[in-house]
Amino acid sequence: MTPGRPYLPSDADALPRELAELAAMLDAGDSLAAYRDEFILPEGVVAYLDGNSLGRPLKATRKRLASLVDREWGERLIRAWDESWMERPLALGDQLGRAVLGAAAGQVMIGDSTTVMLYKLTRAALSARPARTEIIADTENFPTDRYIVEAVARETGRVIRWIDPDPATGVRLTEVEALLSARTALVLLSHVAYKSAYIADMPGITAAAHRSGALVLWDLCHAAGAIEVALDASDADLAVGCSYKFLNGGPGAPAYGYVARRLHGELTQPISGWMGHADPFAMGPGYVPAPGIRRFISGTPPILGMAPIQDMVDLIEKAGMPAIRAKSVTLTEYAIRVADEILAPLGVTVASPRDPAVRGGHVTLDHRLMRDAVAELWRRGIIPDFRPPEGLRVGLSPLSTSFAELATALGHLRQILAADA
Amino acid sequence: MTPGRPYLPSDADALPRELAELAAMLDAGDSLAAYRDEFILPEGVVAYLDGNSLGRPLKATRKRLASLVDREWGERLIRAWDESWMERPLALGDQLGRAVLGAAAGQVMIGDSTTVMLYKLTRAALSARPARTEIIADTENFPTDRYIVEAVARETGRVIRWIDPDPATGVRLTEVEALLSARTALVLLSHVAYKSAYIADMPGITAAAHRSGALVLWDLCHAAGAIEVALDASDADLAVGCSYKFLNGGPGAPAYGYVARRLHGELTQPISGWMGHADPFAMGPGYVPAPGIRRFISGTPPILGMAPIQDMVDLIEKAGMPAIRAKSVTLTEYAIRVADEILAPLGVTVASPRDPAVRGGHVTLDHRLMRDAVAELWRRGIIPDFRPPEGLRVGLSPLSTSFAELATALGHLRQILAADA
Repeated sequence: MTPGRPYLPSDADALPRELAELAAMLDAGDSLAAYRDEFILPEGVVAYLDGNSLGRPLKATRKRLASLVDREWGERLIRAWDESWMERPLALGDQLGRAVLGAAAGQVMIGDSTTVMLYKLTRAALSARPARTEIIADTENFPTDRYIVEAVARETGRVIRWIDPDPATGVRLTEVEALLSARTALVLLSHVAYKSAYIADMPGITAAAHRSGALVLWDLCHAAGAIEVALDASDADLAVGCSYKFLNGGPGAPAYGYVARRLHGELTQPISGWMGHADPFAMGPGYVPAPGIRRFISGTPPILGMAPIQDMVDLIEKAGMPAIRAKSVTLTEYAIRVADEILAPLGVTVASPRDPAVRGGHVTLDHRLMRDAVAELWRRGIIPDFRPPEGLRVGLSPLSTSFAELATALGHLRQILAADA
Repeated sequence: MTPGRPYLPSDADALPRELAELAAMLDAGDSLAAYRDEFILPEGVVAYLDGNSLGRPLKATRKRLASLVDREWGERLIRAWDESWMERPLALGDQLGRAVLGAAAGQVMIGDSTTVMLYKLTRAALSARPARTEIIADTENFPTDRYIVEAVARETGRVIRWIDPDPATGVRLTEVEALLSARTALVLLSHVAYKSAYIADMPGITAAAHRSGALVLWDLCHAAGAIEVALDASDADLAVGCSYKFLNGGPGAPAYGYVARRLHGELTQPISGWMGHADPFAMGPGYVPAPGIRRFISGTPPILGMAPIQDMVDLIEKAGMPAIRAKSVTLTEYAIRVADEILAPLGVTVASPRDPAVRGGHVTLDHRLMRDAVAELWRRGIIPDFRPPEGLRVGLSPLSTSFAELATALGHLRQILAADA
């Protein structure tokens, strides 16, 4: 069984013919199907459903890295800083903003890890609301978000007002409104929930926070590249995200940060390093922040680490987020239909929203034996993600995932669970 | 004129025959000369004297990156985290400690930018000295060190006691001793000064600080890979360094941090992200720091960015730091001899220590017209670094620099300055 080949019932004797044929039909009608060939697709990987944890590499990335080593680094050497590298975290940030985040130029920079970027922008937001004592966050957010907001609250003397949302969906506007007050400095939320894939109401929650005079920091990790993010149109304040999921930046690729232009003068960030200085090479006494988004950069930009992101942002810009989102919806709809028809009878429940308007690019399927089932899938070269206590995340990176691949994986899952029953 | 070819007076008519012959003799007797072939040496670069800003890439790095993209990332995909990536920042840290830093296993981790690592470890040090109110730092330290210590002092309510050292050397033990008291929480110094290359007395200053109950954070950026660093033997507390200089990690490569084992339980760092958690994939509530050095990691380790460092640490381990340091001393001695004989008459002064025992791997040459001279050298494919106001840094990365290359560069510098005179 190789990826890309249509699923046939004889392969695993686990998927009804009509669902297999539907997958083949959806692949045949997929206007983005050809993009799949842009990715490295090794024989040994039968199906990859974890592009929302670590996206596959692009073939172009192999070439870009070789050229970067030989030419930019090897031949231009230190001169490349003047020639292109100094501007790269902002130029790539602009392109990411335009192609993926709905952000006009001059508001996005690349650098740090997501965790460090979260820390910096959380602190930056609080710097602009010094007299306000509360932060709103939720217990279903990704661990690093919770750990960072707890640490920052402790060190800045703030209280966290926790929302405890329904794990099968996520934080609703009314839950945020119930906690907002003149004491609220900051609301920290994920745009797409990392377990359920629920899409939080960015414009509604942002507007509610603004009515209370609070700022909102959006975590875009599971949103960017899967759904159409509209930062500027939502009047967003701040956002952070990681680039190794749907942005295919590779393991531990640098993060990105967005700060709305209107806030640049008002916010200060704690890690005021030389690359955020107005004139880094003057090397003078005292930190003077650069005007604009550059002030949120701290250390030397990770040029090598940024390279793969460039390839994926180029590809997304070419395909267009509306088409990518449309395919993402069809992929998740197909996954849910298969789950309902052949996995539900085995005890599998869909732990993601059924309304595609509030569902991101992955679907979580729960089953009491899922931990063991995922281990068996991995042994078969089928790679989804497991999230405790009993969730299989079907991560569906739109440009690199075919319907046949998804069908194959779910057929195997049925076979494994049926054997256990 | 190509790198590696012995300098001949006819090339530029600028270097006396005896100095050219000396360079050829030193290359012939250099036991490490063959290592130069391990690096990418493009035709267009006549001489590269900026390995202390950005080391040249190794040929092995091109291969390692291709393999990382195709095999680890492309084929193992998310599984590679379990198979090797999770341990890589600590495994590479251990090897770096052993081969380069004089640090036993379990005390070094890789990650973040140097600036972020400086911030984290400065804050960590202060967390262990909560009642002490002063930090000792110096005005000749690299800008990002000064900006970070100023920011941290402000946010934690500390006062900085500044040392204003002789710019042509650096911070002396007596200058530190004069400021140390029961109020001192932390001393932040560079082991090798970024302009003069002066080597600060790590064991002496550390012992003095300890007598006052203070901790010392050493910046190793210009030391690691050029001189023999002896962290454990110096009873060091904390250190940070960057890996794109003498460690050839590439533009913006991740930093490293050292925390002495005896301090692991006592220190807390502010950016407590999921990768420093005792059990990252439990994804439970509340941050519980990992035992040991892992607690100083914050976000997802930058696997791609770490790859080139691995190649250089392998090479350094093979060559051995004692031999590398010996070649470094000979390179700087040769540079100073040429400066004295043929550049001093043109007004050039040596702004680095003359005693090799307190001089690192670069030599700074001052001249009132040096900014223009460096611009002209760059046009000729000869690439040193310029540091305001009037310093040319002759950076001499021991494994990738030949004496002929150095001779060629200094011959051109003489010619340029003589034409201006």
